[in-house]
Amino acid sequence: MNILIAPDSFKDCLSAMEVASALGRGIQKIIPDASISLLPMADGGEGTVESVIDATRGKILRLKVMDPLMREVPSFYGITGDGETAVIEMAAASGIELLKGNERDPWITSTFGTGQLIRDALDHGVRKILLGIGGSATNDGGAGMAQALGVHFGGKFGDLPIQGGGALGEVEQIYMEGLDPRIHTTEIIVACDVSNPLTGPQGASHIYGPQKGADEVMVEKLDRNLLHLAELIQDQLGKEISEYPGAGAAGGLGGGLMAFLNADLVGGFDMVAGVCGLREKIREADLVITGEGKMDAQTRFGKTPFGVAQMALKLGKPVIGVAGTLDEDASLLYELGFDLLMPIQEKPGKLESSLKNGEQLLERTGERMARLLRMEI
Amino acid sequence: MNILIAPDSFKDCLSAMEVASALGRGIQKIIPDASISLLPMADGGEGTVESVIDATRGKILRLKVMDPLMREVPSFYGITGDGETAVIEMAAASGIELLKGNERDPWITSTFGTGQLIRDALDHGVRKILLGIGGSATNDGGAGMAQALGVHFGGKFGDLPIQGGGALGEVEQIYMEGLDPRIHTTEIIVACDVSNPLTGPQGASHIYGPQKGADEVMVEKLDRNLLHLAELIQDQLGKEISEYPGAGAAGGLGGGLMAFLNADLVGGFDMVAGVCGLREKIREADLVITGEGKMDAQTRFGKTPFGVAQMALKLGKPVIGVAGTLDEDASLLYELGFDLLMPIQEKPGKLESSLKNGEQLLERTGERMARLLRMEI
Repeated sequence: MNILIAPDSFKDCLSAMEVASALGRGIQKIIPDASISLLPMADGGEGTVESVIDATRGKILRLKVMDPLMREVPSFYGITGDGETAVIEMAAASGIELLKGNERDPWITSTFGTGQLIRDALDHGVRKILLGIGGSATNDGGAGMAQALGVHFGGKFGDLPIQGGGALGEVEQIYMEGLDPRIHTTEIIVACDVSNPLTGPQGASHIYGPQKGADEVMVEKLDRNLLHLAELIQDQLGKEISEYPGAGAAGGLGGGLMAFLNADLVGGFDMVAGVCGLREKIREADLVITGEGKMDAQTRFGKTPFGVAQMALKLGKPVIGVAGTLDEDASLLYELGFDLLMPIQEKPGKLESSLKNGEQLLERTGERMARLLRMEI
Repeated sequence: MNILIAPDSFKDCLSAMEVASALGRGIQKIIPDASISLLPMADGGEGTVESVIDATRGKILRLKVMDPLMREVPSFYGITGDGETAVIEMAAASGIELLKGNERDPWITSTFGTGQLIRDALDHGVRKILLGIGGSATNDGGAGMAQALGVHFGGKFGDLPIQGGGALGEVEQIYMEGLDPRIHTTEIIVACDVSNPLTGPQGASHIYGPQKGADEVMVEKLDRNLLHLAELIQDQLGKEISEYPGAGAAGGLGGGLMAFLNADLVGGFDMVAGVCGLREKIREADLVITGEGKMDAQTRFGKTPFGVAQMALKLGKPVIGVAGTLDEDASLLYELGFDLLMPIQEKPGKLESSLKNGEQLLERTGERMARLLRMEI
């Protein structure tokens, strides 16, 4: 019996690898001769680096880069076990969680640190870079990221220094000559699960600006600045990015990655599944187990367990979704490829207690499922 | 696939039949051709009448009897579907729950009402009476019960009226001549899961007297009175009951039933299992599902799910225990016959919410188990 365990992390509780391991231990206890593969998954957001590194037996690299306010901050990214692919979470350098509440200011925050992470990955000789871009503190259209990789922006009075979304209005010229040449031979894939255009009422500034600290007046100015940047990109680089779905992700970093680094935008889960070889692993499995801290009707919108289930469904494999919290409306997932939804709770009680005992609860859930699977009646 | 569902009630939530039905609905939804038998169980305590009546398609009879303080109170008992057997919960006539806190007084509370229930059952022509005796308000050694069935007690100044445990000291003579003669041709089986002797430090008065309202002084007097009654029973009826395990159950009602009605004391679960034909039903089943509101290490001491599991184990059938609350220490039940312990909870949350949604949680648990059972891998 080949069992593939490919869950997401359980937020605030366990990493995807810890979840998979606990379930696997429980199953193995009851079915010692089962062949169990652990494949931690993620959706391109928080935990993506950890899951991909765990899944590919890769390594985490730690280094200092500039945070959104250009202060040195400890950061990290991962390189897969084969050394070919870097996995970067933009939030580790340019994330809003790096700022205090009163420091949020998309007028001056920069994605420079994300560019530094990319450069470090190039220094390590990777041929492919996967980039998750959720949770940004910035609205700079990826200009800071580009600067870290050698792109220059010229204004009325010469070369413009590294600044945030507020300074984009002063840009008159984009100089691509200094761009790190290794970018041209490196595949850059961006995990992007939003479809916002760069500008306009559904654009980066209007939709995500306020939560990054912009007031109404600033939102309007930031939106005009991104439009100005998009026009320069069209005129000088010949690329039309403004209306591209996802260009508005991460304060326009999505668009900037396309324009400056020729990156491809894909779904976060597809990106992770690809690098981890999920499809091949499912093909080899007799049973697929996935899961997430909470599963409900929303799970069908691009989250990890749904992606795993869809792939398993296409390959004709039974799939179980394990959850710490299973909402009533999750039952519609039974129509969408899941063969079983399995909660881990054992008694009424507080969330904190479940989070504390997550590992044991998961192990006993694995045991429980195995006991039913091997029951001969 | 023959599935037997034989749970206890879930306290404060659902009757045993409701529990069994909900689980059965969930299973049938996934395995429509499963043959499912619902057999509500009980352990001789609260819910025993309801379960046995549900299990045997019997009927509930309602009548007025005297409560422990000799006030008229609505009561009930059951007669099995074949009309042969009455099932009585003593608590429905002589239970402590019928009294307010400040009314508790074992000096004057009487089991007379329980005798009335027995008499009504005799009037209905039953050949067997099953009697659960948990939760009594009394300490009268069953004297009130006996009086209701025609036994007379004589004192210094003639026939003694119906009184509680306090008056037993005045008894000088037991007159059995008036005992309802149908008692001699009726099998009386008492569910008793305690082993207290009638008197002494482990006897009825010392162990259970305080919770029925007796202070230290009264406990001593009640104990002496029961000893006096036991001596009269030995001298005049030729029966030695004082040291008999279980004689001290229900304020000595256990002993009184043996002495006055020639009753047999058996375990509560065995009594219910017998009348419901549990063993035969298990023999016909491929899988047995039992359960209780809470399952933990204590479950192994005579509770319903453990009894079902032991019987299933002996007959070589797999058995699942379903619980609203599954304590960590329940896992030792895996060593004692259970093949699976299955909690019904789906998310962290309050007990009240679980109790409110018990039926849906159980149905979905049935569904979940069936989905795993029919999974082919």
